[in-house]
Amino acid sequence: MNYDQIFDQAIDRLHEEGRYRVFIDILRNKGAYPNARCFHGHNGPKPITVWCSNDYLCMGQHDKVIGAMEAALHDVGAGSGGTRNIGGNTHLHVQLENELADLHGKETALLFTSGYVSNDATLSTLARLLPGCAIFSDELNHASMIAGIRNSGCEKRVFRHNDVAHLEELLAAEDADTPKLIAFESVYSMEGDVAPIHAICDLAEKYNALTYIDEVHAVGMYGARGGGISERDNAAHRIDIIEGTLGKAFGVMGGYIASSSKVVDCIRSYAPGFIFTTSLSPVLVAGVLASVRHLKKSSAERNAQQRAAAQLKLKFAEAGLPVMDSVTHIVPLMVGDPVRAKKISDILLAEYGVYVQPINFPTVPRGTERLRFTPGPGHTTDMMDELTAALVEIWDRLELELAQAA
Amino acid sequence: MNYDQIFDQAIDRLHEEGRYRVFIDILRNKGAYPNARCFHGHNGPKPITVWCSNDYLCMGQHDKVIGAMEAALHDVGAGSGGTRNIGGNTHLHVQLENELADLHGKETALLFTSGYVSNDATLSTLARLLPGCAIFSDELNHASMIAGIRNSGCEKRVFRHNDVAHLEELLAAEDADTPKLIAFESVYSMEGDVAPIHAICDLAEKYNALTYIDEVHAVGMYGARGGGISERDNAAHRIDIIEGTLGKAFGVMGGYIASSSKVVDCIRSYAPGFIFTTSLSPVLVAGVLASVRHLKKSSAERNAQQRAAAQLKLKFAEAGLPVMDSVTHIVPLMVGDPVRAKKISDILLAEYGVYVQPINFPTVPRGTERLRFTPGPGHTTDMMDELTAALVEIWDRLELELAQAA
Ligand SMILES: Cc1ncc(COP(=O)(O)O)c(C=O)c1O
Ligand SMILES: Cc1ncc(COP(=O)(O)O)c(C=O)c1O
Repeated sequence: MNYDQIFDQAIDRLHEEGRYRVFIDILRNKGAYPNARCFHGHNGPKPITVWCSNDYLCMGQHDKVIGAMEAALHDVGAGSGGTRNIGGNTHLHVQLENELADLHGKETALLFTSGYVSNDATLSTLARLLPGCAIFSDELNHASMIAGIRNSGCEKRVFRHNDVAHLEELLAAEDADTPKLIAFESVYSMEGDVAPIHAICDLAEKYNALTYIDEVHAVGMYGARGGGISERDNAAHRIDIIEGTLGKAFGVMGGYIASSSKVVDCIRSYAPGFIFTTSLSPVLVAGVLASVRHLKKSSAERNAQQRAAAQLKLKFAEAGLPVMDSVTHIVPLMVGDPVRAKKISDILLAEYGVYVQPINFPTVPRGTERLRFTPGPGHTTDMMDELTAALVEIWDRLELELAQAA
Repeated sequence: MNYDQIFDQAIDRLHEEGRYRVFIDILRNKGAYPNARCFHGHNGPKPITVWCSNDYLCMGQHDKVIGAMEAALHDVGAGSGGTRNIGGNTHLHVQLENELADLHGKETALLFTSGYVSNDATLSTLARLLPGCAIFSDELNHASMIAGIRNSGCEKRVFRHNDVAHLEELLAAEDADTPKLIAFESVYSMEGDVAPIHAICDLAEKYNALTYIDEVHAVGMYGARGGGISERDNAAHRIDIIEGTLGKAFGVMGGYIASSSKVVDCIRSYAPGFIFTTSLSPVLVAGVLASVRHLKKSSAERNAQQRAAAQLKLKFAEAGLPVMDSVTHIVPLMVGDPVRAKKISDILLAEYGVYVQPINFPTVPRGTERLRFTPGPGHTTDMMDELTAALVEIWDRLELELAQAA
């Protein structure tokens, strides 16, 4: 048994497929984002423009958020010092859970250390509480939901992406007495498309299934108060469990679910991933509280983001770049090859000071490797023009095809 | 299929067993810890003394930590805005990984969002990379290790707590060609005892097994630089993977492993729990950097903690309270019943302003319910005297037995 050899082979496989990952290290410039400094491969920091951050609305740079975090730092200190049950339940946690429950019109909410953990812990625990449960999962569901479903050990039925007819087929094939859970996302973050929430809820009612929605790429950004697509589409009341992150549009870190008191009480009491871990730092919680409260009242950030996304999609299309169909703030460019995607990204960073990460397997299926841009309130028209020109030049240099100008 | 009924039953079971958990909400007073404010069940905050925090060395209140976090907040903002691979790899993350690798004398370290996630993600991924792997796990291992082992889907052999003879029996029974991993903790946090690291490493060498140690309750607190029991016992070089938390003695939040570059590269590349989640907030990372650097040089906090623990154990023993054998900073009092443990805790909080959480199943085995005190540099002799007197009064009131004064 030669352990080193096995580890070497695992890494070699990644190199061979051209998807060995190199982390680009940067520091953002608070107040001037998307401007940042890049340290990777340089002797000192080099100025860059970030095009792939999920701090979608620049809330991680917002004065109210920074101010709230600073105040908490001086009031209560750095960490919580314990799990939620043992010394780590601060009054700020309680307040934030109330705020998030209100955001989604649910009885209660529950915080986790991340969106990943909220999906993994909730789905695995829920399915274990329901004897013989079958989970119906969209084929493009995020890795954290897949982990939760796998770790629940229950039956999994995968339905074709956003395909309600296929979902119904699978539901109808199941025994009426089998507990059922439909798990899906609202905004699919690598495609930018949106789930047919009402149609899925219709099926859930018809076949008596629970519904679980991941609104990670929608909370803060859709709905009049930032309650996500389920708020925008007036469907939140039809969903049993809404899951979200505090690390993307809300700009900080952490995750949560919002649901009935009953369900939350069960997860709170039975999920190891919730119980046995130090709770979120109160400093983070204070920042998120400020962020959620701000975005409940202000739509300026949401509107600016939608304008920026529309503008960039148009510029890409006009330049003939292979921009993918997206009905949201996400702007993916299809490349279709991991080596080429990395090459384009490398040139952008080295020659143009533009940072956009190539998206490879396992984040997206093989053969659909892409670049994924996330324009936000901070991206100016000038930045977009520079970016588009750079991409056209690189497409040309690498002899890639451009479409006819749209 | 009545979902509500199933959820109700799950909660009822907890009430029946007397282990339904009520979270006590508090806010610590920065700079004055273990003093805090309790909000739970009061109209306004009430002053309390915290006796059950895992901010063991008060580093979550340390000026260097607070200062570093404040600086990062103003320099780079609240959140990282992305996963480590996509926009969330800050220069601070890179620096902290270097610092932690150095702390343990390993080639590399890797950050996770929590200690729980580092155990779960590393163990499940490692075992999946090693075809046919068998994991040898101490029976008192933490829930996060158990989750990782379970989620790996591999064979699990449980050895009796700290029992090397039993471990050898199990190792010897295994095929020589089977990949093997021994997973254990250094300090067991609910008992306060310590693993025989060298004896376990001897067996690992004899049977060609990898070793994985959870030093969550030891890092920062043992060893000349805070490298944990493996540093104190001069055994770090014999362990393949050292895992730790940033949320206890280091006072902030997060987790990590330190190991060879090869192993870290594999986990970094294959573990969904590492790949698919927003990276630690740079604010937290900056705080931890300051904390680790401070504790590498200063032993004052470690010494003060050991003194406080020795003093409290002595006071409990002299008063005849059932203090458990502990060779570390952890001071557990055996109660042996969930209802009684909660009762004592409730009286302490309501009448004495003392906060110590009862520890029930599943955190400890049924019938071994206890109170767990974590004295630290901030707990004074007066506080200890008050606490001991309160406990003696309650023991008396509840007609519990006190031993002869030691
Ligand atoms: C759809 C989806 N769900 C969940 C997560 C995990 O959230 P977090 O980053 O807070 O762990 C992500 C991305 O990170 C995601 O894209
Ligand atoms: C032994 C042990 N390992 C791991 C963890 C998890 O660490 P964290 O709190 O950073 O998630 C804990 C407690 O929380 C623990 O007691």
